Amino acid sequence: MDKQQLIDCHERIKPFIHNTPVLTSRLIDEMIGANLFFKCENFQRMGAFKMRGAANAIMQLSNEQKEHGVVTHSSGNFAQALSLSAKSLGVKAYIVMPDSAPQVKKDAVKGYGGILVECESNLNAREQASKKIVQEHGATFIHPSNDDQVILGQGTACKELLELQPDLDYVVTPVGGGGLIAGSALSAHYFGNNCKTIGGEPFEVDDAYRSLKSGKIETNSSTNTIADGLKTQLGDRNFPIIQKHVEEIVRVTEEEIVSAMRVIWERLKIVCEPSSAVALAALLKKKEELENKKIGIIISGGNVDVGKLPF
Amino acid sequence: MDKQQLIDCHERIKPFIHNTPVLTSRLIDEMIGANLFFKCENFQRMGAFKMRGAANAIMQLSNEQKEHGVVTHSSGNFAQALSLSAKSLGVKAYIVMPDSAPQVKKDAVKGYGGILVECESNLNAREQASKKIVQEHGATFIHPSNDDQVILGQGTACKELLELQPDLDYVVTPVGGGGLIAGSALSAHYFGNNCKTIGGEPFEVDDAYRSLKSGKIETNSSTNTIADGLKTQLGDRNFPIIQKHVEEIVRVTEEEIVSAMRVIWERLKIVCEPSSAVALAALLKKKEELENKKIGIIISGGNVDVGKLPF
Repeated sequence: MDKQQLIDCHERIKPFIHNTPVLTSRLIDEMIGANLFFKCENFQRMGAFKMRGAANAIMQLSNEQKEHGVVTHSSGNFAQALSLSAKSLGVKAYIVMPDSAPQVKKDAVKGYGGILVECESNLNAREQASKKIVQEHGATFIHPSNDDQVILGQGTACKELLELQPDLDYVVTPVGGGGLIAGSALSAHYFGNNCKTIGGEPFEVDDAYRSLKSGKIETNSSTNTIADGLKTQLGDRNFPIIQKHVEEIVRVTEEEIVSAMRVIWERLKIVCEPSSAVALAALLKKKEELENKKIGIIISGGNVDVGKLPF
Repeated sequence: MDKQQLIDCHERIKPFIHNTPVLTSRLIDEMIGANLFFKCENFQRMGAFKMRGAANAIMQLSNEQKEHGVVTHSSGNFAQALSLSAKSLGVKAYIVMPDSAPQVKKDAVKGYGGILVECESNLNAREQASKKIVQEHGATFIHPSNDDQVILGQGTACKELLELQPDLDYVVTPVGGGGLIAGSALSAHYFGNNCKTIGGEPFEVDDAYRSLKSGKIETNSSTNTIADGLKTQLGDRNFPIIQKHVEEIVRVTEEEIVSAMRVIWERLKIVCEPSSAVALAALLKKKEELENKKIGIIISGGNVDVGKLPF
């Protein structure tokens, strides 16, 4: 994927996304000993960066494809992102979700105009359900993270950040399925001035960290983390980009995630998901190496039930 | 206080404050049936609008007065605001606080460079302690809300909001000591285009509501509200301004405050104090009268212990 594709993607999705604000905090800067710029994708439409990739993926379909709709399986932010993007573009979105998913997530999808398709809570069931919709309706399957158009879309948050702060030394993102970090690394490469990309990943779901070490895609045997957006699996579209363009992936404990989340809430005064705090946790962990650096952080999302907080 | 005083005040304090961002939410707009613009003073330095009035009050002192420092009694945001403003201006700040105040608030004052003076937890003790500092050190007493220079400073948040959104129909603020609503009402009067000012006040501390009804300053016999920033008493400097320029004060229940606070946290994705939610609660209460109006809301502050939330 080249620079022009990122530029075209950004122009294409601009009418459907917010150029989200960038916040700073003197107190957090003092904690790290560096200058941090928080790109607040929690303020994005539907509350997460996923809106960017979903909008781009749908817009790249042919008119005939759009007529038959799109389908994905997700119980997270991509379900809402695809629903809202599709609605904005006049396209049907079928969302396959396990019947065990929280009612609030099912309602959110329906609220954004998605067509909810419930299935059993296992990988095979959701793949079968998706396949059936593709066959019956001719819908196009869009993967939440392992898709070139999705990766390009997710990269536009980092592009916007670099437009405001062109001389960042680092950009830091959480690592889940790999779409955000791959897209961000491409933007850092093409639009930064020697800007390096760092990932934060929970020890409990460290498939990307281990994949970088071994040189092949590793899987997680369990997904016991509070960072529920990061339980997803690295893919074969984003992994090569991560191999080529990501400097390092830093693993963090569950305690470090909760502690960083509290810093963001109390110091930056914003509501973010546990997944978003993983990036700051990674920075706090390696702050000795970051003295006086200019660092961008993507706050990935803010969809959280404030009645169920870890503090 | 005239228009030029507000303009001069704003220019004076600009180097010491943030021009805070204004956020919007389609979902909240749909809930109210109007267009809302949230002026996020939770992102202000030290986390609340109080920074504005404190900075202005200190800057208006003579050099001789500045040499002897300033004193206030507050266990809330004004304590931190006066400490940080004074530090930024090279002035000593004595902060009288009850010894029963939470350690986190005492630490915050010290962290911002204030000189903490503890006293017993009653009005007489704190007034005596303040008087003693005035006598011994020659410090100037600055009231957290009942002071012309403080009122002018607090009004600059609404002035900034009107610079972005000149045709607001309403501006809404919480009502505590009265500094914010009086300053906002002045700005709405001088810089708005027929912009009316509405206050939100908890039923539990409805001194301003009752004062407007009776035409004289009323007091609260108890202060049993979650909106801890609003327990303070209306004063003789801000009450005449409120009488002249405030359209209405809307009272809200504790349940309505918590419910509005949850909307702000979950929909707007920001951390705000219960006091800030009182303004949105007031709007939700009278939404029938506000259809299709453009409304500014001052989110007054974000200093809250996220480990002690009402939801």
